[in-house]
Amino acid sequence: MLGGPNLGRLGRREPEIYGTTTWTGLVVQCQAWASAVGYDLIAHQTDSEGELVGLIHEAADAAAGLILNAAAYTHTSVAVRDAVASCGIPVVEVHLSQYAAREPFRRVNLLADVVQASLSGFGPEGYRLAVEGLANLLATEDSPA
Amino acid sequence: MLGGPNLGRLGRREPEIYGTTTWTGLVVQCQAWASAVGYDLIAHQTDSEGELVGLIHEAADAAAGLILNAAAYTHTSVAVRDAVASCGIPVVEVHLSQYAAREPFRRVNLLADVVQASLSGFGPEGYRLAVEGLANLLATEDSPA
Amino acid sequence: MLGGPNLGRLGRREPEIYGTTTWTGLVVQCQAWASAVGYDLIAHQTDSEGELVGLIHEAADAAAGLILNAAAYTHTSVAVRDAVASCGIPVVEVHLSQYAAREPFRRVNLLADVVQASLSGFGPEGYRLAVEGLANLLATEDSPA
Amino acid sequence: MLGGPNLGRLGRREPEIYGTTTWTGLVVQCQAWASAVGYDLIAHQTDSEGELVGLIHEAADAAAGLILNAAAYTHTSVAVRDAVASCGIPVVEVHLSQYAAREPFRRVNLLADVVQASLSGFGPEGYRLAVEGLANLLATEDSPA
Amino acid sequence: MLGGPNLGRLGRREPEIYGTTTWTGLVVQCQAWASAVGYDLIAHQTDSEGELVGLIHEAADAAAGLILNAAAYTHTSVAVRDAVASCGIPVVEVHLSQYAAREPFRRVNLLADVVQASLSGFGPEGYRLAVEGLANLLATEDSPA
Amino acid sequence: MLGGPNLGRLGRREPEIYGTTTWTGLVVQCQAWASAVGYDLIAHQTDSEGELVGLIHEAADAAAGLILNAAAYTHTSVAVRDAVASCGIPVVEVHLSQYAAREPFRRVNLLADVVQASLSGFGPEGYRLAVEGLANLLATEDSPA
Amino acid sequence: MLGGPNLGRLGRREPEIYGTTTWTGLVVQCQAWASAVGYDLIAHQTDSEGELVGLIHEAADAAAGLILNAAAYTHTSVAVRDAVASCGIPVVEVHLSQYAAREPFRRVNLLADVVQASLSGFGPEGYRLAVEGLANLLATEDSPA
Amino acid sequence: MLGGPNLGRLGRREPEIYGTTTWTGLVVQCQAWASAVGYDLIAHQTDSEGELVGLIHEAADAAAGLILNAAAYTHTSVAVRDAVASCGIPVVEVHLSQYAAREPFRRVNLLADVVQASLSGFGPEGYRLAVEGLANLLATEDSPA
Amino acid sequence: MLGGPNLGRLGRREPEIYGTTTWTGLVVQCQAWASAVGYDLIAHQTDSEGELVGLIHEAADAAAGLILNAAAYTHTSVAVRDAVASCGIPVVEVHLSQYAAREPFRRVNLLADVVQASLSGFGPEGYRLAVEGLANLLATEDSPA
Amino acid sequence: MLGGPNLGRLGRREPEIYGTTTWTGLVVQCQAWASAVGYDLIAHQTDSEGELVGLIHEAADAAAGLILNAAAYTHTSVAVRDAVASCGIPVVEVHLSQYAAREPFRRVNLLADVVQASLSGFGPEGYRLAVEGLANLLATEDSPA
Amino acid sequence: MLGGPNLGRLGRREPEIYGTTTWTGLVVQCQAWASAVGYDLIAHQTDSEGELVGLIHEAADAAAGLILNAAAYTHTSVAVRDAVASCGIPVVEVHLSQYAAREPFRRVNLLADVVQASLSGFGPEGYRLAVEGLANLLATEDSPA
Amino acid sequence: MLGGPNLGRLGRREPEIYGTTTWTGLVVQCQAWASAVGYDLIAHQTDSEGELVGLIHEAADAAAGLILNAAAYTHTSVAVRDAVASCGIPVVEVHLSQYAAREPFRRVNLLADVVQASLSGFGPEGYRLAVEGLANLLATEDSPA
Repeated sequence: MLGGPNLGRLGRREPEIYGTTTWTGLVVQCQAWASAVGYDLIAHQTDSEGELVGLIHEAADAAAGLILNAAAYTHTSVAVRDAVASCGIPVVEVHLSQYAAREPFRRVNLLADVVQASLSGFGPEGYRLAVEGLANLLATEDSPA
Repeated sequence: MLGGPNLGRLGRREPEIYGTTTWTGLVVQCQAWASAVGYDLIAHQTDSEGELVGLIHEAADAAAGLILNAAAYTHTSVAVRDAVASCGIPVVEVHLSQYAAREPFRRVNLLADVVQASLSGFGPEGYRLAVEGLANLLATEDSPA
Repeated sequence: MLGGPNLGRLGRREPEIYGTTTWTGLVVQCQAWASAVGYDLIAHQTDSEGELVGLIHEAADAAAGLILNAAAYTHTSVAVRDAVASCGIPVVEVHLSQYAAREPFRRVNLLADVVQASLSGFGPEGYRLAVEGLANLLATEDSPA
Repeated sequence: MLGGPNLGRLGRREPEIYGTTTWTGLVVQCQAWASAVGYDLIAHQTDSEGELVGLIHEAADAAAGLILNAAAYTHTSVAVRDAVASCGIPVVEVHLSQYAAREPFRRVNLLADVVQASLSGFGPEGYRLAVEGLANLLATEDSPA
Repeated sequence: MLGGPNLGRLGRREPEIYGTTTWTGLVVQCQAWASAVGYDLIAHQTDSEGELVGLIHEAADAAAGLILNAAAYTHTSVAVRDAVASCGIPVVEVHLSQYAAREPFRRVNLLADVVQASLSGFGPEGYRLAVEGLANLLATEDSPA
Repeated sequence: MLGGPNLGRLGRREPEIYGTTTWTGLVVQCQAWASAVGYDLIAHQTDSEGELVGLIHEAADAAAGLILNAAAYTHTSVAVRDAVASCGIPVVEVHLSQYAAREPFRRVNLLADVVQASLSGFGPEGYRLAVEGLANLLATEDSPA
Repeated sequence: MLGGPNLGRLGRREPEIYGTTTWTGLVVQCQAWASAVGYDLIAHQTDSEGELVGLIHEAADAAAGLILNAAAYTHTSVAVRDAVASCGIPVVEVHLSQYAAREPFRRVNLLADVVQASLSGFGPEGYRLAVEGLANLLATEDSPA
Repeated sequence: MLGGPNLGRLGRREPEIYGTTTWTGLVVQCQAWASAVGYDLIAHQTDSEGELVGLIHEAADAAAGLILNAAAYTHTSVAVRDAVASCGIPVVEVHLSQYAAREPFRRVNLLADVVQASLSGFGPEGYRLAVEGLANLLATEDSPA
Repeated sequence: MLGGPNLGRLGRREPEIYGTTTWTGLVVQCQAWASAVGYDLIAHQTDSEGELVGLIHEAADAAAGLILNAAAYTHTSVAVRDAVASCGIPVVEVHLSQYAAREPFRRVNLLADVVQASLSGFGPEGYRLAVEGLANLLATEDSPA
Repeated sequence: MLGGPNLGRLGRREPEIYGTTTWTGLVVQCQAWASAVGYDLIAHQTDSEGELVGLIHEAADAAAGLILNAAAYTHTSVAVRDAVASCGIPVVEVHLSQYAAREPFRRVNLLADVVQASLSGFGPEGYRLAVEGLANLLATEDSPA
Repeated sequence: MLGGPNLGRLGRREPEIYGTTTWTGLVVQCQAWASAVGYDLIAHQTDSEGELVGLIHEAADAAAGLILNAAAYTHTSVAVRDAVASCGIPVVEVHLSQYAAREPFRRVNLLADVVQASLSGFGPEGYRLAVEGLANLLATEDSPA
Repeated sequence: MLGGPNLGRLGRREPEIYGTTTWTGLVVQCQAWASAVGYDLIAHQTDSEGELVGLIHEAADAAAGLILNAAAYTHTSVAVRDAVASCGIPVVEVHLSQYAAREPFRRVNLLADVVQASLSGFGPEGYRLAVEGLANLLATEDSPA
């Protein structure tokens, strides 16, 4: 599981809006959810586009699947897109907020057509759905994308 | 749970692509999933934009939440959008395919900014995630949208 | 007088915004206003684009003029536009809200260049102005469009 | 009541198209209509954008409401828009012709989202409707805009 | 053979423009032309987008090929497009007028890239060409689309 | 009958896609089809925009009607458009492939609004339909375009 | 002859670029040129859009034709356009510089389709050509516009 | 003096619109006008873009200046533009009609920013103005472009 | 120092938003700030585009530099831009509010590329910074623009 | 105070254009200016988008306000924008050059609507104005943004 | 090797910019370079789009590969594109200048996605690289395009 | 020689498409090619935009020229563009694939107008051409860019 820029601030600012869950807390929850469906989950967060590209390469070599919240890079990074497009493992894109209801430039999503599945707007719960959905995609590898 | 145009054909054409699950079969599954989280689920499918608007009105009056796959009307219908925007109950938008990877005109989504949450690309499994995600949204009504 | 999608909900939801006038109440008022200027007024509301097209055809055959609030179809329906453009009777377009102050996509109006006259933003009172304005257009058939 | 550029020529050119009503004649009619609903109406016409801005300021200080036909400035003037947006009194926008049926650049309307209500296409009669509509808006100050 | 919105009015309005052929008359002619090339032709006309979608489904199950004049829905309906794209039988699109010479928004054609062939501008005679052309496409199923 | 750039290569390259009919063979077929409806057909093919313009001038002086496949010039040539627009005889535009399903720039068609009728996607058979359709247009010169 | 904003500065700034001819000097020259072809020429220059509109109205009432350099208002003023479009006398548009070679926004010309003729890039000499060209247009009133 | 596509038809079609002057007649007139200001004028007309490019090269080598009506190639030809941009002699662009008042695609002018001066809408008389204007530009070679 | 349309209303409307500083008060403050850095400051405010153009001409002749808040004309006036571009003295553009955070059409700024420097969002304090910044630009005339 | 990509090269390349002030020199100057208004100023420069995001997070936790020259990231980085938008302290955006006068893509500014104030074009002096302006914003925290 | 419009002028105009190499000289150089890698090189230059199409057809029949500088037709010709796309031999596109740094319309390149490889900006030397690169592509026919 | 994001994966994934050459292998080859033309070649690859900017700065200080494959940053990075534009040494841009034939967003190239020369589509061989081309540019420093 990889998180993009500003996600490290989760739970530390504007808790009345984003809740009190921190990125670390979220990772712990996701590890429990992953464990419940039989997977080990390793998580990293970075503010850097290049580092995110590198972490996707590592996931491509070492992981069965990837849960990705590229945050702002979702809308601007061809580099992240290229890494996802060639990584060879199923990728599920998740967003805490319903970003389509925000600024117009967030309507540009460079990842949506190279990931297997997307979900947004469920808050932290969305990560549980992403973990379960990815597990299901892996279980039915031969299912239609 | 409401389904839009062409979804009634599910499972009857191109089963090698869309699988053999029919709309009726999907409804039965969803009812089981809903039951498991403590809800009764009622489902309708229609090819008609106007009828879909009317069904959203009925849901607004009678249901706690709505799972909506508006299919093609997602991209063209201001009428459906207006019905959703004013319905007063949480709406989760679900799509079987990762439609962002299809034709450019599907990048226009008139519903995404008036629903609470969206998911796409998980196939029929996505409906299970939608049911669970909606149940969670209802349970934490005061959670951030 | 014809009403488009979602107008049947008038007065039943968000009365603090749209007032407590229902579509039925509005029709009764309009019939009184029409009567005062010497016309019988018949009204229908439908959520269906196709049915609205058919009702315009009926008006074309049976009515002297038409007051039309196509609601969401104002912004998306070439079918309604084609029906209006060929109906051969004066059409006055009316909107309860000042829709130009809402979402950008409402700036697309497919009817404005095929109706005789338009008004918006006056609330229910706008219907009285539409009735009187249409009566005046009919009285001066040879007036400039 | 304020009129924008070229309206001073009303009734003097192309009477077969625009009728024989002059701006002065229209003002007299509007004063009678205003009187009938209990208001004094003062009118000015100017070809100058800056002067129109100044007249809106004067109206803001001295009038209960404003009927505005900004003519060509409707489509190009941010200055007039700013004056209207901050004037603090209800403004009704009126156009003699159904301008949406004319050149594409007239589809840009910089005022429509800062006025309370709009009407077009009724010819001189539209001014009577504007006067009555504005009176009604003033009478129900607490009505929804 | 399926006809879209407003085609039911054919021959009844503006006969000096569209001729005196009604939809019913056109159907009779087409049945004769179809018969001459060895096919039974069944025809429906509807103003409703949803009903048109349903009729395409029926054709997909019961017919060898489809002649479609979706009229206004040609320019706006993703639902009709989806139905055509997945119907599995050859579809020929026909228009009475040379619609490219009309309003700019008619330049958007959502069907042209999912039908086998298109023709426009021949008036009622175009239906004869469509019948013969479709028969030829069916006869050479293995011909290039 | 006039053919534009690259049509001289017909039948000589990629016969598995475009069939084995050459331009010369197609001309012979068309002459037979024309003969059957009472016309002599003269055909030219050129890769040159200027020469195509000149050939349209010649047709304007010498022919009753014109069947035109301007190929690539359909999408780029104002010169050909101007020649067609002023030629004074009915022109039917024909394309072998359903070009709307190809690259986006082929959606620009500079001829469609100055010809009488268009057809595409029928392969060589389309030329037979074009010959018959043009003959019919000529027979009913006073029919609506 | 009317001149728009900033033309009053002609000859006083950057004479190495625009030459040493002042507006007043240019007017004197134009009066001589007009005299030579039998016309009296009256000229005004104004920086004000509204005043320019008024001067066009005056020309419409008092002059046989109009030579207009609207300068910056060429690109922004619908008010000037409306005045020109309804003035009822031939208007020739002239520009000192070849403005198409300047900033992209100067490619928007709101007057070009409502004047009879345009010329640009000839410097002061262009005014002589405009005077002679307008005289010729007046002499052949029945010539094609 | 060079003429582009379709200009060879001048005076032979639609004389009620374009007058009865042929290209040949126009050339004779221009030669007289050129002679009056001390120049020999040589003229060519071609429908071919490539030939027009070659004629501009010849003019660059042999002529003092160029009067160019590139007709349709004005709007589409980068090749003609490149030839003009590098020809090293003053070029005056002339158009018989006020083409800005025609189709929107004629608003694209690829030559206007590489010629010295432009004029349009004066009919054949425009060629006299072009001859005189070009002579003046040549006489004041050091005048501002 | 020049102020554009609606700035004369400063401090008189919506003081809770724009503060209680009037234009006159602001001028007095600026004169003090200018005095402190060794300059006399003369100020004018006008609602008229043409008058603003004329005032810029006057500044060009009489002032060492110009502080300009063109308000709405910033977004629409090519006339003001032309006056600024040719005025030959340093111009600093200042805005009270951070206008980039307002309506999308305010993102069009016709002056930003012809002034030396810009600032916005500092409220009245921004005028002090503008005065000091301009004084510094004047002191280092040979500094990079 | 934070500087974005390429600012570390300041003063080392093209000193005839950008002056001889280095980033380090600029920091020293700014620290003096900050000191003069009672603040300690800490500065960092980075070429990395991710590192810049992290530095904004640090400023959010440790600083009273932020002076930001995001350089190229101003035009492309949603990540920096998100960091600024949620940092909770006043941010003043500063640019050495008047970037609006450069390439068109620099007209896209992703930060301008989430910072409190902006200035550009004053060269190094602009940093002094930014320091003083920010100090003033901090002193009048309750001033309008 | 084929050259497009205006390349015949190479070396004869503006030698200070384009050098003194003529097209003929360049051909001789290229023949030597081709010879060195074992190929005979035949070259043609034409200003005509249609002739260029024909020359590509000839190359398709007679050559192993093609070096193409379509010059201006690179940006406008669908006909040349269609010829290249179907020619069945490797095509290398070469440009003397770095055309991306020129006018915006040169950013449209209709050939780039149908050739195997492109190079630009190397001047005449670029042709040597093109010859060697094409030879390498031919040697590794089964290499990835 | 600098390589951008994802190039470090070269040869390790999808070798059937991109071949078995790794980045390291490519560097070795390039060093040999550079040696053959008398240069030492130093190479770096990074996934990070900021690091790439820094490496360009280092090249500017230490290298005679630069071979750059910025990969995804070619399409999105103004920071890399700014670094290239100011680096003061010749830069040759190279791409393994013919990227113009890929997704539409790859048609945006922010570097093409600030590098000296570009090549694409030759696979690894393209690097040899880049080395030789750059050496030639360096040898003829005074050659036209």
